[in-house]
Amino acid sequence: MATINPNYDKLAAGYLFPEVARRVGVFAEKHPGAKILRLGIGDTTEPLTPAVVAGLHAGVDRLASRESYTGYGDYEGDPPMREALARIYAQRGVELGLDEIFVSDGAKPDSGNIQSIFAADNVVAVQDPAYPVYVDTNVIAGRAGRFDPVTQQYDRIVYMPCTAQNGFFPELPTQHVDIVYLCSPNNPTGAVATKEQLSGFVRYAREHRAVVIFDAAYSAFIRDDALPRSIYEVEGAKQCAIEINSFSKIAGFTGVRLGWAVVPQALEIEDGGAGKLNQLWRRRQSTFFNGASNVVQAGGMAALSEQGLAECQGLIDYYMRNAAIIRTALEELGLDVYGGDNAPYVWMKAPNGMKSWDFFDKLLTEAHVVGTPGAGFGPSGEGYFRLSSFGHRESIEQAVVSIRENLRL
Amino acid sequence: MATINPNYDKLAAGYLFPEVARRVGVFAEKHPGAKILRLGIGDTTEPLTPAVVAGLHAGVDRLASRESYTGYGDYEGDPPMREALARIYAQRGVELGLDEIFVSDGAKPDSGNIQSIFAADNVVAVQDPAYPVYVDTNVIAGRAGRFDPVTQQYDRIVYMPCTAQNGFFPELPTQHVDIVYLCSPNNPTGAVATKEQLSGFVRYAREHRAVVIFDAAYSAFIRDDALPRSIYEVEGAKQCAIEINSFSKIAGFTGVRLGWAVVPQALEIEDGGAGKLNQLWRRRQSTFFNGASNVVQAGGMAALSEQGLAECQGLIDYYMRNAAIIRTALEELGLDVYGGDNAPYVWMKAPNGMKSWDFFDKLLTEAHVVGTPGAGFGPSGEGYFRLSSFGHRESIEQAVVSIRENLRL
Repeated sequence: MATINPNYDKLAAGYLFPEVARRVGVFAEKHPGAKILRLGIGDTTEPLTPAVVAGLHAGVDRLASRESYTGYGDYEGDPPMREALARIYAQRGVELGLDEIFVSDGAKPDSGNIQSIFAADNVVAVQDPAYPVYVDTNVIAGRAGRFDPVTQQYDRIVYMPCTAQNGFFPELPTQHVDIVYLCSPNNPTGAVATKEQLSGFVRYAREHRAVVIFDAAYSAFIRDDALPRSIYEVEGAKQCAIEINSFSKIAGFTGVRLGWAVVPQALEIEDGGAGKLNQLWRRRQSTFFNGASNVVQAGGMAALSEQGLAECQGLIDYYMRNAAIIRTALEELGLDVYGGDNAPYVWMKAPNGMKSWDFFDKLLTEAHVVGTPGAGFGPSGEGYFRLSSFGHRESIEQAVVSIRENLRL
Repeated sequence: MATINPNYDKLAAGYLFPEVARRVGVFAEKHPGAKILRLGIGDTTEPLTPAVVAGLHAGVDRLASRESYTGYGDYEGDPPMREALARIYAQRGVELGLDEIFVSDGAKPDSGNIQSIFAADNVVAVQDPAYPVYVDTNVIAGRAGRFDPVTQQYDRIVYMPCTAQNGFFPELPTQHVDIVYLCSPNNPTGAVATKEQLSGFVRYAREHRAVVIFDAAYSAFIRDDALPRSIYEVEGAKQCAIEINSFSKIAGFTGVRLGWAVVPQALEIEDGGAGKLNQLWRRRQSTFFNGASNVVQAGGMAALSEQGLAECQGLIDYYMRNAAIIRTALEELGLDVYGGDNAPYVWMKAPNGMKSWDFFDKLLTEAHVVGTPGAGFGPSGEGYFRLSSFGHRESIEQAVVSIRENLRL
């Protein structure tokens, strides 16, 4: 008789965003007149830029004629797309070979699937709070152990607290771990790691022969040029790190779906040497995946053109202005506010020692504003709250006015 | 120290099609003047139809304006897309709820990922020969055991031989198995299961509380109306079967990427009851996947419109005419030929007791025609050969002429 993967039943709760949607649904049903202002999910709201739209149309037209139609593409992505990505890295001094870049349908699938090339007994460390996909996919793979409802932790996952005390960047693990997930600019805290901070983890990884999974999905939001946009800007990172990135927030591709992973040939692993993880990820992708959509890649290529990059910078500037509006308003209310300067997320301490979900309900009920409870990202997120700058300017402004006028602090 | 998933090293050889590409590359380099005629990979060659092109363009345009732009969609696919798919099933008498249909980026990811919701010790049975993804993904998940280079089999996989003697549809397993992969119309043999044949497996699955993974990616090629296009046309299948399908061959979406899986609520599993596998697949998709591209889904919706369906039928008729040309030519040469009447693949016995890869090299060297060695699909495929009808008419005709004139039988 067939039986289920028992690890699914170890998942502590439904995925965070469905629970947010459920509570919003209940509220909307009870208050049919209320205008709900959504600063919850990090979902883009502004249209694709003209160059990207033209690129997508051209991609469609290529498939409309017999001469230019193409079927299956390379599992790793179209070579011109990988060349364009390599050029972007080269501008920051990072040289990558085309066989080190793997185009995909987004950072979420890559950050979920990457763990599958590692052994089931590897010990995983995550920033706490963190994007839930890192922990959940490792739970499903059997690396997490049991969930303790008191500590809100899985007993085999190493949680690295990110708090106001350490500027939301974790200390190095004091014990041995095998795989470390880092996200910078961080979702949810909006903190951005410095080169020195990343260097510490690269040194740790090389000493412990661990692998860093570096999620750089928000790197385009970095404005301070001294901050690294890629972990490979740090000496030695190619020997120990995989990097994941996405077009979702750069080009408004949350629904269009395009991302990429970098698995350097120099990346070493104890039981396979350099090149082994590159080979395994290639095998994983060629077995489970059939390449990113050719139409979508045509749009991605356009986003990486000179015109496309300039236009996408306009999108990023728009969302960063939103972030500044949110930050300023919350600070004026005397709240403790973090992030939002080199990242699209504003992270705040819930007032008066409130718990995250309680503040979620309060903000929704009083100001009709939806945010994301910090506790949904891990136990150290308890008492914190995330506001997303992805939204139309007028919604952001309405939300800020409503918070100022209606939130009882 | 990080270590690799050791199951990757149990994979017997590179994925079939990369090896085909390698040998063709070597030949092309040695014979730069030769015109190579490719009937190997089942890759579509004809342009998208006008309705689909219009649908894709409209999908792009929706993202170009602030009023109609959308970001993240439903993990399970846009509701109108699932409604359209449900209507197609209803035409064959199969009633499905929208919560039973999961839109994806293709049948390959779905048929690769579906095993991950089952326990690692489940025993898997596959048709032999079969699409390599079924076995390879189970090897990577640790269900296959060790590969025996003599039998060309993994010791924990149950191989169900499909040969000329049984009309290329397997007998029921004599031992107990937990998960059965069936593909009809079959890749690679082109055989199509009757209702009676599928009923046997449904009865077996219900008796053994096993689950059938039914790959119907080629169902649109069925011309004989008495043959089932969905396993759910068979009584009791909803209690024991998952079905996978794709837009790749229907609409020419091999590079565009769109597919779907059906996981019925009635599907039962011993340790979770009815609905459990539906819930697990939903959790799997919402954790590892962010929905199929919205642009691509707009094209898929157009393919399912009345006009789109009529146009896509034209594509299918075109490829089926190709199949008839290949079949007829090979039969005239006195070869043993199968499939190609309700499926886009023609399956033939290599002449004079030749092995599959030897015939591959012979056909390439003598006729400059690329096919796919049957042995690449499993041990019972040894001595057989697959020719794909996906190609421009003139290539198919040139290939047939070249085989007739140059192949030394």
